[in-house]
Amino acid sequence: MSAETIQPRLTIIGLVDNDIHSLTEAPKGYDESDRTGYLEIFPEYREGLEGIEAGQTIMVLFWLHESSRDVLKVHPRGNKENPKRGVFSTRSPVRPNPIGVSELEVLDIEGTSLRVRGLDIVDGTPIIDIKMKI
Amino acid sequence: MSAETIQPRLTIIGLVDNDIHSLTEAPKGYDESDRTGYLEIFPEYREGLEGIEAGQTIMVLFWLHESSRDVLKVHPRGNKENPKRGVFSTRSPVRPNPIGVSELEVLDIEGTSLRVRGLDIVDGTPIIDIKMKI
Repeated sequence: MSAETIQPRLTIIGLVDNDIHSLTEAPKGYDESDRTGYLEIFPEYREGLEGIEAGQTIMVLFWLHESSRDVLKVHPRGNKENPKRGVFSTRSPVRPNPIGVSELEVLDIEGTSLRVRGLDIVDGTPIIDIKMKI
Repeated sequence: MSAETIQPRLTIIGLVDNDIHSLTEAPKGYDESDRTGYLEIFPEYREGLEGIEAGQTIMVLFWLHESSRDVLKVHPRGNKENPKRGVFSTRSPVRPNPIGVSELEVLDIEGTSLRVRGLDIVDGTPIIDIKMKI
């Protein structure tokens, strides 16, 4: 098998709804974020949310649709004073598969809408997975 | 936007090389695994690995290509005595986007081959991302 033979397709399960409207407003990787916002999951995935409760910490995977996919080296944290490193040794959103992973605290859940703390992701970003944090 | 309008395509960046040859041999989610194995990254992504060193803990994302994508509730840990729960409140490999997330210790890196500890993933599984652990 080579890199080109299989290219699985992702299914978007919902969208971020918050007040970060551009990448420049989003906090950089390593910062702790106290921002709250909503994970709006599409109604057809409602059953998959059963068991998620306020107070839990969940791991959420986002598809960072505005990020470049053809860059393999970056200045860590976007700071040109940091020497370039391979994207796989950073948390840069720029990478062949621009998937962001965040750990978020569930504040409230109503239907398929989850209010969460720690959401440093741009409004409208596609959500691709939610997992229990180990 | 609905669930169907965009379906991003993933790029496979490498493959797991280890001695777990079936799902029944793989340890279940929450267990600590001490198994070692290799992440064989395709040569075209070599630059992206610069900065990864032995001793680091990396977060690795896998495409669990043998998992069902159309199941929304499961018995946690595959044990029928556990009442069914939504897949998003578990670590089940079964989910609309079967992406596995593992934290692995880098033991050695030679070219684009990373020897790692903690690899409880079936041999031949596609790798889709590597990140620095926060």
